[in-house]
Amino acid sequence: MLGELYRTPLALLTDLYQLTMAYGYWKLGRAEQEAVFHLFFRKPPFAGGYAVAAGMGTALEFLDAYRFEDTDISYLGSLTGNDDRPLFDREFLEHLKNLRLTCDIDAMPEGTVAFGQEPLLRIRGPILQCQLLETPLLNMINFQTLIATQAVRICAVTGGDPVLEFGLRRAQGIDGGLAASRAAYIGGCAATSNVLAGKLYGIPVRGTHAHSWIMSFDSEEQAFESYAQVMPNNCVFLVDTYDTLEGVQRAAAVGQQLRERGHEMVGIRLDSGDLAYLSIEARKILDEAGFPDAVIVASNDLDEQAIESLKRQDAAISVWGVGTRLATAYSQPALGGVYKMGAIRHRDGSWQPKIKVSEQGVKTTIPGTLQVRRFADERGYVGDMIFDDTRGPDARGIVVDLKDTGHLESITSSATSTDLLQPMMRGGALTEPPAELATARQRAAQQLQLLHPAVQRFTKPHEYLVGLDIWLHELRHQMIQAARQG
Amino acid sequence: MLGELYRTPLALLTDLYQLTMAYGYWKLGRAEQEAVFHLFFRKPPFAGGYAVAAGMGTALEFLDAYRFEDTDISYLGSLTGNDDRPLFDREFLEHLKNLRLTCDIDAMPEGTVAFGQEPLLRIRGPILQCQLLETPLLNMINFQTLIATQAVRICAVTGGDPVLEFGLRRAQGIDGGLAASRAAYIGGCAATSNVLAGKLYGIPVRGTHAHSWIMSFDSEEQAFESYAQVMPNNCVFLVDTYDTLEGVQRAAAVGQQLRERGHEMVGIRLDSGDLAYLSIEARKILDEAGFPDAVIVASNDLDEQAIESLKRQDAAISVWGVGTRLATAYSQPALGGVYKMGAIRHRDGSWQPKIKVSEQGVKTTIPGTLQVRRFADERGYVGDMIFDDTRGPDARGIVVDLKDTGHLESITSSATSTDLLQPMMRGGALTEPPAELATARQRAAQQLQLLHPAVQRFTKPHEYLVGLDIWLHELRHQMIQAARQG
Repeated sequence: MLGELYRTPLALLTDLYQLTMAYGYWKLGRAEQEAVFHLFFRKPPFAGGYAVAAGMGTALEFLDAYRFEDTDISYLGSLTGNDDRPLFDREFLEHLKNLRLTCDIDAMPEGTVAFGQEPLLRIRGPILQCQLLETPLLNMINFQTLIATQAVRICAVTGGDPVLEFGLRRAQGIDGGLAASRAAYIGGCAATSNVLAGKLYGIPVRGTHAHSWIMSFDSEEQAFESYAQVMPNNCVFLVDTYDTLEGVQRAAAVGQQLRERGHEMVGIRLDSGDLAYLSIEARKILDEAGFPDAVIVASNDLDEQAIESLKRQDAAISVWGVGTRLATAYSQPALGGVYKMGAIRHRDGSWQPKIKVSEQGVKTTIPGTLQVRRFADERGYVGDMIFDDTRGPDARGIVVDLKDTGHLESITSSATSTDLLQPMMRGGALTEPPAELATARQRAAQQLQLLHPAVQRFTKPHEYLVGLDIWLHELRHQMIQAARQG
Repeated sequence: MLGELYRTPLALLTDLYQLTMAYGYWKLGRAEQEAVFHLFFRKPPFAGGYAVAAGMGTALEFLDAYRFEDTDISYLGSLTGNDDRPLFDREFLEHLKNLRLTCDIDAMPEGTVAFGQEPLLRIRGPILQCQLLETPLLNMINFQTLIATQAVRICAVTGGDPVLEFGLRRAQGIDGGLAASRAAYIGGCAATSNVLAGKLYGIPVRGTHAHSWIMSFDSEEQAFESYAQVMPNNCVFLVDTYDTLEGVQRAAAVGQQLRERGHEMVGIRLDSGDLAYLSIEARKILDEAGFPDAVIVASNDLDEQAIESLKRQDAAISVWGVGTRLATAYSQPALGGVYKMGAIRHRDGSWQPKIKVSEQGVKTTIPGTLQVRRFADERGYVGDMIFDDTRGPDARGIVVDLKDTGHLESITSSATSTDLLQPMMRGGALTEPPAELATARQRAAQQLQLLHPAVQRFTKPHEYLVGLDIWLHELRHQMIQAARQG
């Protein structure tokens, strides 16, 4: 059942080429050859300065249940090549059937602030396993990181007002909705309208009534009164079905009746029209009627730009309902995260770093088995260092700015540091049960406090320092030269 | 398990306000009051002239399994209002627990060409059921209709070349990927990389190897040879890991070895660089080496605009791999479909049409129990008529253009007509098992043949005639006037 979605074997949730490559490695006797891969994005989404990592909890539940079912094996056995003969040997399918993960995974805990080129997740283990897991790990982490980041941006502009996520009806499929609710909560949303997300993830749920409720009665007054009668402890009246400000008057009148019965209305909701004008006028009506604490919820194609504009106009909105533009990350609906090989182990036991060179510098990978160390002083984060975990950083603590190789800096003199990639899986087993979602949400909030506001700016944000350990920089430089000459 | 995703009870996959409204109707003794709702979009996506309806098959599987589980009931019982008391009565939860759908659903079969304001789906039944189903029906039909339409647009510009859908790694969650593969196939894609979509929906799957395969060997030559050795019947060599045109030469050499062993290479794949230049040069190399039938697959951020441009440059690409921009509908990642009440039944048995009026004409709904009749002559489709199904169209067959009420036309004189909303569910039971996906794909292809190319144009498409039956137009006009005066 979907409640168990990610705890269900989903081994076929991958690209076919992962399976044909897995077959190749197996056939060549290399299935158990160890490799290291890193999952990272090159640039933060939305032309912003950072992202908030998410999706790892979902990925770990998926990995914990990983295995091929009998019907998966039969299906794979039915696939054929251009000679109409089977793609895969029976023995290989038997190998898949018995496959249990044995790999090690280190990842940023959900809610960690992340920057371009930094591994969000590192996997080390048999190359066959690393390859099969590429697609599902990218799917889960790309999307949730995108939505958590979108949610942070929206919550950043409401000045502390709660943001409700309402996106399910226009989300990209069932899990497009569920995973969006999950990631939006990590990013700071206060609640969701998605009841299944509430049940599965413990996210608070919110909702009262729609225009159809009003339309099903002979009058708006009757609709409000009926609603207040049946659900006196959850009254947010939707006031814009006919004439918005008349609707507010009626809501206030029903709020009075409610109060006489010992209940307090929560507030009203605006879903159309000029939200600045209507909220300001609605506030006056509610205040004059004795409801200074009644909230004004607004919705209707909101995103961070629309909310910023309404705030500048002193809109009297106290709760923001955000749907489509949050749940689909409308302005950039995909994060281009990739998954690249960092090293491979030879038969003699030695590790060989691997690089993929591109004419675009940003697309050239970082070789090795990487870790990210974040440095902070009393004012907040000062910079991150990417280094090879099997060697440790250069003793002098010098880094070369990844975006400007002429810029060298020593950041290790700062007070404290934390290694961001934490053990999540060892030998195919979870190191601990996945954390509560609330922990990830809290982590994101705390880390954003430590990230300079200039880096969080929407327009041309300040570039946070992400440096390569100088030894790793020099290794990479040599490997690029060697690749160019070879 | 996910293989059974849509056949699993998912009753909580809805917005909370649907449940609070359901509670209200139940509490007021109105749960069984019958209503009619329509699901429709106002404007086709991508500033285009049409959409291709999809997602109904998924929705029907969801509806067929619809029921509240015990854990759903417990969860709902735990929700509280602003007085910390339960939102829902025990008796209501008992009602939900025993709820079985009894509604009637008529919908466009998947693959039907659809236009703005036309109901894609009509539901008639107890208002409580209609309300609960709003959110999941919108979720499934909005997204799949969006992606099927995106796929049609991409397939339209390749001049018959196959399009492969590669979007899983950047899709919006697990089902964002699965549902996208499904809808893309309806829209005309030839295959997917998503193996689980292949298993669940019978879509052909494609894939060979990635850059990581090449990087795991000491040389590209060795990587190609090894691949050809282990999987001789599925050889598409990825040639751009180091130097693309040298890669093509190496692929041709390995292709010769394969041929000597009695196998034929399928072709090569380009994933970076100038795809026009590289494909033209690669074609020459392959032709000269004796591989005129080897395909050239290209991928890398492709969409309909990029493909059109490559076609204008005479790129020698024969198969198009499209990922992110197809699976997320990157240029417009959500379809704004809505679900509005058309009529409600009174205690005396009579039906009352309902309208929601807006200051924006396009947001004013069409009252009634609607059906869409499509007229065609020997040259193709001539226009659609929306009429009230309980009354039938006006005898003279006159329609009023929905976009231009000064434009009246008689379209019923044309040769043939079809009613687009077909019975899908009666009394909560499917009228027949969901159709094969291939049937929907074929339907889309056939219908697009009958739709004038000017309507399919990307830029300022010709507006296809969607008219309101004149009787319905007059009813609507009177209801708008009454709403304005009331």
